[in-house]
Amino acid sequence: MEENNIALITRMVLEAIEKQNREEKGFLVPVGVSARHLHLTQEHVEILFGKGYQLTRKKELMGGQFASNETVTIVGLKLRAIENVRVLGPVRGKSQVEISATDAVRLGIKAPVRESGNIKDSAPIAVVGPKGAVYLEEGCIIAMRHIHMSPKDAKAAGVSDGDIVSVKADNERGTIFNHVKIRVDESFTLEMHIDTDEANACGIRTGQTVTIKKSI
Amino acid sequence: MEENNIALITRMVLEAIEKQNREEKGFLVPVGVSARHLHLTQEHVEILFGKGYQLTRKKELMGGQFASNETVTIVGLKLRAIENVRVLGPVRGKSQVEISATDAVRLGIKAPVRESGNIKDSAPIAVVGPKGAVYLEEGCIIAMRHIHMSPKDAKAAGVSDGDIVSVKADNERGTIFNHVKIRVDESFTLEMHIDTDEANACGIRTGQTVTIKKSI
Repeated sequence: MEENNIALITRMVLEAIEKQNREEKGFLVPVGVSARHLHLTQEHVEILFGKGYQLTRKKELMGGQFASNETVTIVGLKLRAIENVRVLGPVRGKSQVEISATDAVRLGIKAPVRESGNIKDSAPIAVVGPKGAVYLEEGCIIAMRHIHMSPKDAKAAGVSDGDIVSVKADNERGTIFNHVKIRVDESFTLEMHIDTDEANACGIRTGQTVTIKKSI
Repeated sequence: MEENNIALITRMVLEAIEKQNREEKGFLVPVGVSARHLHLTQEHVEILFGKGYQLTRKKELMGGQFASNETVTIVGLKLRAIENVRVLGPVRGKSQVEISATDAVRLGIKAPVRESGNIKDSAPIAVVGPKGAVYLEEGCIIAMRHIHMSPKDAKAAGVSDGDIVSVKADNERGTIFNHVKIRVDESFTLEMHIDTDEANACGIRTGQTVTIKKSI
């Protein structure tokens, strides 16, 4: 065997062992389970809740967002409805409804899995409030799972904004989520956001932790 | 470096490469999504549907089982109900209700994740039919995901009855299921059984395929 090959193979083995050790340890991330909810423009808030209406704060969320006291009923193409869907504030530039795949089946609509904000050609949905209704031609999505973190956390985890990682839930059901996007911002608290389907399917509750692995 | 170490490391590398090639290829398994359903004893069939009643066949399933035309309403401890739950036949030695974790939340009960048949100390549930009702002190479970296969398939996949494997769904959402039990029997058709939560959370539909990996 050539000396070069021996050196190469030895380095490969050492690197593999080191990588394995690093990944076995992983980086712990608390989970936040997102129930169905929606974001509204101020224009839509006023149509649904009355002229000049302002959303009222129920609970603070990360990054200056809040759960409002306001709820709506959403109705899909087959005229099936889900009641008591929470509005998040503050108002945004575009209205967006985030549901689970189970909700999409229940409503009879085809909502795509998307990052928040990316609603082009997503599913149409009707939103009904106490003072009016709006019909969104597009805006209903299934939120793509993702991890929020500060630049400091990103450094500690060895990841960057936009990275795609795998995340392991080492519980009774035992699941690895691939294709998980990292989002880094100073205003973010370390948290992985999954929807109720993902939480129920994988036996995870808010506050439990998962571990970041590199892509598998 | 010792000659022994070089030989050892070289063998480790070759084995690792071979293992990786084998696992990257994997073994394809079609998925069957199980909606909520129940199995009944003949005694319970007669309480729910009338004396001497026999379940009637709607659709054949694997291993001599069938979906019957009969459905029931199930009611949890908080008196919340789910209607139109399908009865599978033929009758069994013990009645058993299989629901998703989402259903458990909806019903307000704590159902454990279990293999079919293992219902000791599982959740209580009421079952209501057109002619009567039974209260199961135990019997409500969330079915643990598993793969059915024939001995021939098991040989091809390199697994044995009772093995625990990981299974990869390489689709848009991208998920690896760990802790998946292999069940081998001559009467089994190759199929991975997951519940509606797992299917919805992971973007999988009946008839799509996943790949068996060794435990990750």
